[in-house]
Amino acid sequence: MHKLLTVETCLSPLLFPARLTWSDYIVVVIDVLRATTAFNAAFDRGFTAIIPVAGTEEALRMQQEGYLVAAERDGEKLDFADFGNSPTGFLSSEIVADKLVYTTTNGTQAIESGKAAGNLIAVSFSNLSAAAEWLERDKKNVLILCAGWKNTYSLEDTLCAGALAEKLSSSALYVVIDDATLAALELWKSAKDDLLTFVSRSSHYQRLLAKNLKDDLAYCFKPDTSKAVPLLVGGQLIDGAR
Amino acid sequence: MHKLLTVETCLSPLLFPARLTWSDYIVVVIDVLRATTAFNAAFDRGFTAIIPVAGTEEALRMQQEGYLVAAERDGEKLDFADFGNSPTGFLSSEIVADKLVYTTTNGTQAIESGKAAGNLIAVSFSNLSAAAEWLERDKKNVLILCAGWKNTYSLEDTLCAGALAEKLSSSALYVVIDDATLAALELWKSAKDDLLTFVSRSSHYQRLLAKNLKDDLAYCFKPDTSKAVPLLVGGQLIDGAR
Repeated sequence: MHKLLTVETCLSPLLFPARLTWSDYIVVVIDVLRATTAFNAAFDRGFTAIIPVAGTEEALRMQQEGYLVAAERDGEKLDFADFGNSPTGFLSSEIVADKLVYTTTNGTQAIESGKAAGNLIAVSFSNLSAAAEWLERDKKNVLILCAGWKNTYSLEDTLCAGALAEKLSSSALYVVIDDATLAALELWKSAKDDLLTFVSRSSHYQRLLAKNLKDDLAYCFKPDTSKAVPLLVGGQLIDGAR
Repeated sequence: MHKLLTVETCLSPLLFPARLTWSDYIVVVIDVLRATTAFNAAFDRGFTAIIPVAGTEEALRMQQEGYLVAAERDGEKLDFADFGNSPTGFLSSEIVADKLVYTTTNGTQAIESGKAAGNLIAVSFSNLSAAAEWLERDKKNVLILCAGWKNTYSLEDTLCAGALAEKLSSSALYVVIDDATLAALELWKSAKDDLLTFVSRSSHYQRLLAKNLKDDLAYCFKPDTSKAVPLLVGGQLIDGAR
């Protein structure tokens, strides 16, 4: 019998450094609200590369060099930026370019942490099936990295981790080997029949609802609207599914 | 209307330092397998104070000064120690003293982290009701600190956090305000009707089962066998319920 691939989960970026002792795995960054959902939307709108940067200074400097910039902190688009962190904003945008520089409160920070692993993709509900199929072809052990909110735990990222783990383990290629993924799977089973109601109790859902971002919230929990698989190659995310 | 007290959870000690920005709360350390269960058993057997120490060198030094010592690493009693980390071991022990020095892989490390908060109790399934009643009289905001396994997430500590949060929020004094506690509550709801089956999939359960610790495992998931409430006072745990 062939050796099963493993699925594990870090429920916060703070738990990630302790996991970096393994090799031969791919890191899957999840930031449902909203960065990893917005990455897919940007690829769907026509961008061909996203350059994640952790700091706003770097984003501003690159804008001065001519790049379009998406920049968000605490749910708000920064004044200097061309875009915020809104997936529906990208989908309806009049402007598009080859490359997009991107910095957010949590998502791009998680990518920064995950870079050390070498192999990294970004996943949300919007590319769940596309990502699962890509991973099954890639055939590496999977370490899911939930971006959370300012290094704490977030419910929506855990649920998406559970949804991905369910897809992977149903393929018979993978086995779940840690408590965090077991818990994510159980939560997903409790939530999936009425996901929006379940997740509407989460802190960041309420935070974004208070900012009148209802369209984004509905979009972020809709599965499989995108075929994109944001893949980190040489410091840039490209669409690995193309 | 009176102001509700809050309940929050750190699912790993690594997530704790980020939470230390609040005041007026009590930290509740949970290490179901097995430290916080064993503390209760030690009080039930007749010890009147437990001195948690993080390092084995310190434990050894205090043994040489005449203390009885409980010392465990990776599920095993250390050779020099008088006790391991077994609750059933304490209950059936022939020897007892006033004070007990204690060091474990996860539990006493979590207490070390939690000390900074000033107010701290230890909780497991075995003193769930006693602890909930004590907390309701104490009337502080509650921050649950799951000890986990070597700084990662553990299913059994999360379930106990959920069980405690359910008891507290049913009292109408408390409100759950973070995603981690919401998730713990949901997991507990899924697990509670068949707790042992649910938790038998967890990594640390399997680790202890492989060490032939079936009696301890059964004891650790039995609710309300103890009336003790280990309370940190001046660097020692005493039974706050006495």
